[in-house]
Amino acid sequence: MNIQDIILKKRNGEAMNTAEISFLVKGISDGSIPDYQIAAWAMAVYFQGMTGQETNALTLAMAYSGEVMDLAGIAGKKVDKHSTGGVGDKTTLVVIPLAAAAGVPVAKMSGRGLGHTGGTIDKFESIPGFQVERTYHQFVEQVNAIKAAVVSQTGNLVPADKRLYAIRDVTATVDSIPLIASSIMSKKIASGAEGIVLDVKVGSGAFMRNEEQALQLARTMVEIGHGAGREVVALLTDMSQPLGETVGNALEVKEAIDLLRGHGPADLEELCVTLTAHLLLVAGKFSSCEQAMQQVCHTLSSGAGFEKFCELVSAQGGRLDYEKPFYGLPQAALQTEVISIEDGYVAAIDALEVGRTAMLLGAGRERMGDIIDPAVGVKVLKKKGDYVQKGDVLATLHANDQERMQNAYKRLLASYRLAEELPTGTPLIIATVK
Amino acid sequence: MNIQDIILKKRNGEAMNTAEISFLVKGISDGSIPDYQIAAWAMAVYFQGMTGQETNALTLAMAYSGEVMDLAGIAGKKVDKHSTGGVGDKTTLVVIPLAAAAGVPVAKMSGRGLGHTGGTIDKFESIPGFQVERTYHQFVEQVNAIKAAVVSQTGNLVPADKRLYAIRDVTATVDSIPLIASSIMSKKIASGAEGIVLDVKVGSGAFMRNEEQALQLARTMVEIGHGAGREVVALLTDMSQPLGETVGNALEVKEAIDLLRGHGPADLEELCVTLTAHLLLVAGKFSSCEQAMQQVCHTLSSGAGFEKFCELVSAQGGRLDYEKPFYGLPQAALQTEVISIEDGYVAAIDALEVGRTAMLLGAGRERMGDIIDPAVGVKVLKKKGDYVQKGDVLATLHANDQERMQNAYKRLLASYRLAEELPTGTPLIIATVK
Repeated sequence: MNIQDIILKKRNGEAMNTAEISFLVKGISDGSIPDYQIAAWAMAVYFQGMTGQETNALTLAMAYSGEVMDLAGIAGKKVDKHSTGGVGDKTTLVVIPLAAAAGVPVAKMSGRGLGHTGGTIDKFESIPGFQVERTYHQFVEQVNAIKAAVVSQTGNLVPADKRLYAIRDVTATVDSIPLIASSIMSKKIASGAEGIVLDVKVGSGAFMRNEEQALQLARTMVEIGHGAGREVVALLTDMSQPLGETVGNALEVKEAIDLLRGHGPADLEELCVTLTAHLLLVAGKFSSCEQAMQQVCHTLSSGAGFEKFCELVSAQGGRLDYEKPFYGLPQAALQTEVISIEDGYVAAIDALEVGRTAMLLGAGRERMGDIIDPAVGVKVLKKKGDYVQKGDVLATLHANDQERMQNAYKRLLASYRLAEELPTGTPLIIATVK
Repeated sequence: MNIQDIILKKRNGEAMNTAEISFLVKGISDGSIPDYQIAAWAMAVYFQGMTGQETNALTLAMAYSGEVMDLAGIAGKKVDKHSTGGVGDKTTLVVIPLAAAAGVPVAKMSGRGLGHTGGTIDKFESIPGFQVERTYHQFVEQVNAIKAAVVSQTGNLVPADKRLYAIRDVTATVDSIPLIASSIMSKKIASGAEGIVLDVKVGSGAFMRNEEQALQLARTMVEIGHGAGREVVALLTDMSQPLGETVGNALEVKEAIDLLRGHGPADLEELCVTLTAHLLLVAGKFSSCEQAMQQVCHTLSSGAGFEKFCELVSAQGGRLDYEKPFYGLPQAALQTEVISIEDGYVAAIDALEVGRTAMLLGAGRERMGDIIDPAVGVKVLKKKGDYVQKGDVLATLHANDQERMQNAYKRLLASYRLAEELPTGTPLIIATVK
């Protein structure tokens, strides 16, 4: 077998067979196929796509290209939740304790943020003392003890995807649906999840800008999951404005705690409850969505979810004081209110711009390895459909640097678009793909 | 400027501007753009093509990416002839002396053969003593003295094309018409030709298998040439069977000499005369094709072309004895006749297979740097439209190895296809593109 022939086949629009895909993935993992041939192949895939069979085979070959997590030591059906990345998306912080409190073990491996989207690990790390590095043994033991653990992704999971992604990232071949789908799903499969709930974001702050593409990605991932014998469901959710009220690590942790204590914003609560209900469903705890929703609502309102969150934080060395106004989370030195200069209904908030504003303040990374500031970020007070008058506060900036704050002010103000008419509403949960 | 944005632009089907193309070619030449980004860009070009403006800009940027030949020291308008590569194509050996004898200086830099197509340098080198390495000074002096010289391509001509081609060769991005056109034309422009005659081969033994593609390539190259201020004409010529009677280096030199002495095969003579006439036209020697053809016919029939050939061989150290039956060229130890096993008209001779048979005998290179045997090859006695009877000789194999000859025998026999009906004829010169 020969990589040139495989590139040629794909370039000509033919489907690769499983042996060819295995050869390709092996060559990506062990370095025997050079970068330029991988790049040419990825560009050919961008133009010619892949069949369902090809995508499934690629995903499985990548999933087994390195270590595969063995979660057999954890009792019960293991579930996982994945978001394609948005702005202000702190759902994982809420969903883990809710699901765990409802009796479903969540052994969560998560990543750090890059670009305008945040990462769960960065958010947990804004809690003083919180440890995200755990040995395999500690990880399994904690899940068995309290049903929940969250750790930073370990070394050699899906090495083929690491190399392929690094090449795609610099060759304009990132936005290929089969390649995105297999990248995400190979990691979920390698991390041992039996039930997977996918949150596919669509809108200005998401990777997928339009519904059609997002739907195609959701369908592709669900098919891959089924092909690999996993329970999978994907929700298509709105990311045309930031989710909830805050963007920035400690700010988002505070918002998640507030939600678990019964004071969360409606949109975030709706999404967290729905995602958790689907986790219970893929875990086989319930057979109807109504029952699962009811259970999650009860877990939330009874305070059981909040108790589980406290337990999780303590178990991983985190120190919070829930009596204090900011719960002992780091706070930024400077706060400024962003004031509206006109009247009107909020017609749109460019989520990408809000994410970039937070990154500009220091909340996110431009490059892998950049150091982030856990305290800074944006609190979005007016959301789509709200009526504002000139002089009203649209948002609050939390900063540790005067100059950055001034730049952020302009950027945030520009991300708001006001209109005379009340905008037509977009549902938060656009579609469910099973 | 950023290579990722350039790849993205091309991937999305937009045209690159001249500044972007210069940046790209500079990065290819100086190594600052890595292989994988060049590969991804080439694959995007394969799918999206390039506009005429882009192709012209790419060609010029490549032509000036390294040394450019200065032929100002040679009196008269310098012309060059290029073939896209075929089987049995020894036209350059005939065209150089014919054009030179008609008063047009030909300062020819040529390449070696690779794969099933031969190279002019290899053919000249089968002449005992013939030197293809010449200093720039010697080269110019010889052209001024006898109007003709042929040398092996020098080191640093069009380095961008060398690197780009090496990458395209292993990433299934060779067959892109704008990339082929700019690769050929950048070398012609850098080698200083003012008038260029292109022989675009089409058929089983050529890179272009169908007329439509070949015509598109011809038109693209002519446009590039005009854009660079050169006189250019392209002939589309048939390569559905080998050209003339022989394939193999010394065999082809002998055939070229025979032609110059008045005993050449009709198809080869027709093409050589026509190509030379076009060289005289692009050199501005004549204004009508008829006049140019008449001049070339006279140069051939008067023996002036043959005399010029002898002069060229002597000037470059070659030793031939035109009184001997094989002119002192190396001869193979073994000769075998390939016998027809059926009756019928020759309907087709797969030129690619004949080329590969010659390569198998040792006449060509599988890889750059392979050593070739100048004496071996194939003499094709029956051509398309000839009637053969079972037992007739189709071709002769010239070999230096018994085992190779046996394999070649089977291959050559299989390359002939006989039919009951006389096949419809293909014209040798299919079209002329100006």
